[in-house]
Amino acid sequence: MRILLDAMGSDKHPQPEVDAAIQATDEFGDELTLVGNRDMLLPMLGKHASRIEVIHADDVFEMTDKISARSLRKVQNSLGVSMDLIKSGDADALVTAGNTGGAMAIALARLGRLKGVRRPGLTALFPVKDGFSVVLDIGANTECKPEYLLQFALMGAVYAELVLGVDNPRVGLLSIGEEAGKGNELVRATYPLLENSGLNFIGNIEGKELFGGEVDVTVTDGFTGNVLMKGVEAVAKLITERLREEIMASPISQLGGLLVRPAFRALQKDLDPREVGAAPLLGLNGLVFVGHGRSDDKAILSAIRLARQSVEVGLLESLGRSVESALGKS
Amino acid sequence: MRILLDAMGSDKHPQPEVDAAIQATDEFGDELTLVGNRDMLLPMLGKHASRIEVIHADDVFEMTDKISARSLRKVQNSLGVSMDLIKSGDADALVTAGNTGGAMAIALARLGRLKGVRRPGLTALFPVKDGFSVVLDIGANTECKPEYLLQFALMGAVYAELVLGVDNPRVGLLSIGEEAGKGNELVRATYPLLENSGLNFIGNIEGKELFGGEVDVTVTDGFTGNVLMKGVEAVAKLITERLREEIMASPISQLGGLLVRPAFRALQKDLDPREVGAAPLLGLNGLVFVGHGRSDDKAILSAIRLARQSVEVGLLESLGRSVESALGKS
Repeated sequence: MRILLDAMGSDKHPQPEVDAAIQATDEFGDELTLVGNRDMLLPMLGKHASRIEVIHADDVFEMTDKISARSLRKVQNSLGVSMDLIKSGDADALVTAGNTGGAMAIALARLGRLKGVRRPGLTALFPVKDGFSVVLDIGANTECKPEYLLQFALMGAVYAELVLGVDNPRVGLLSIGEEAGKGNELVRATYPLLENSGLNFIGNIEGKELFGGEVDVTVTDGFTGNVLMKGVEAVAKLITERLREEIMASPISQLGGLLVRPAFRALQKDLDPREVGAAPLLGLNGLVFVGHGRSDDKAILSAIRLARQSVEVGLLESLGRSVESALGKS
Repeated sequence: MRILLDAMGSDKHPQPEVDAAIQATDEFGDELTLVGNRDMLLPMLGKHASRIEVIHADDVFEMTDKISARSLRKVQNSLGVSMDLIKSGDADALVTAGNTGGAMAIALARLGRLKGVRRPGLTALFPVKDGFSVVLDIGANTECKPEYLLQFALMGAVYAELVLGVDNPRVGLLSIGEEAGKGNELVRATYPLLENSGLNFIGNIEGKELFGGEVDVTVTDGFTGNVLMKGVEAVAKLITERLREEIMASPISQLGGLLVRPAFRALQKDLDPREVGAAPLLGLNGLVFVGHGRSDDKAILSAIRLARQSVEVGLLESLGRSVESALGKS
């Protein structure tokens, strides 16, 4: 297996990427390739340079609205070089902590989509009661059609089965009210498609069902999904900061704070996006995992672990089969 | 001042309403009127019946899709009776913990909208760093036009000024990315309207800015706002439950848990929706505050407090002036 790691992606690149590459090679022993500016990377790798391959690519590519389709197909930055290696079969997956829009645009231009897929969906694992839940789209498509949401459901169910190990995953449609007639136009038009999809569709859901662990796959448009994801991240931060302030406000609660510190740490680990590390773009003709720009080495290592697992279980092939089989039926 | 309290609204009606009415009369001394089934309410009020007026109305009105406009104008349930009393000037505001859609439909049929208002917006106070932030629409309008969002911004700013006491409130547009070109079609079309509104528009915002207390008024469509609100409520519950479980997992952290209990309580108070209690429907030709169906007496009392404050500061008149003045300019 060969996983590519975009060395130029994260906000603090390439240090977190170099550190993660060394740790991944220690952990898995197996081929991990850094893609980025070789002159910068080789000295940082030092004695590890002998066991970690570096493929050279020009520095960071700034995304602007003026990028032409032609330049997306030609650009030789770390993302462009990586996509070509996946396309040619020389690599199995890419991990990047770079700009999501950039990764999506270059991936669409170079890898294209799985047969029949209308739009790839950016797919997160949300921490919920007793585990994780798959949520997509969390930001790749701000305007969606009902057919896209149906395909997100099909692909999300495959992901939940293969990566979370859930049999016959429960699929919910994010809405505002549980009855079939509730929601905006998109949700109301998507509902019957999901009802007739053959999936284990449990109907409209809200935050309570999602975070209560009552659903394995939550389907939504990329605008709503992204607002929700960023909202819950921010509120989790607010709660832990407030609690810390309250605990520091008196000597007795400070002592109590010392005693509950392990409990706090366990909670933070449970809720830490770094424990999962990256969101796949499901529906591309190749495996691409996009992490937070602010990823550290631990987050990137988690993303590499997720990418490896996805390759091992044959995620790409299963996604393709699921979408093709649904198209065959409709 | 006369505040009406819908006695038949909450999931456990009318007990929480009766308890809240007694507490409100103790606290404010002044006229609070219960609207609901008199035969049920009088025995519950007992010795307090002499100081709390009850206006009779038929029992709960079940909302269905088949309700005609005519029945909305005629129905004599607690909401219908209350709206008529506000319309005629015999009452200053209504508090209900009933169905939001029902309250909105009956209010539109009986009170109508403030002059020039396209759609009333359901308006929440979200707990954020160092205080509260106004968010609307949180669920009254699942499909919105840019003009509605502009009016939500105007009305939300008046609410923040008068009820939160913020001078020149900062207004943000909920989106996915801070640049002007980011977001869905609705957001992109709304951005220039807000830029030219004369409001203190700070641009697109995400969860980080909202919960970080960087904005006083957050504008969004009712679908996105409702999904966000329910999502953050559910995640706050998940975090506090998880932390409790972690603390109970060892004797040492249990002891620590006892010592941090006051800190926990202070946090829960900060984040408790019952501390605010109700969301006004801004833009109606009358003041209507809608609380959670699961409101208890404490939540309903908070809602009464908020309604009283809104009457005292002349919220309705200021909303009308703000919308009319904006229409005059455009």
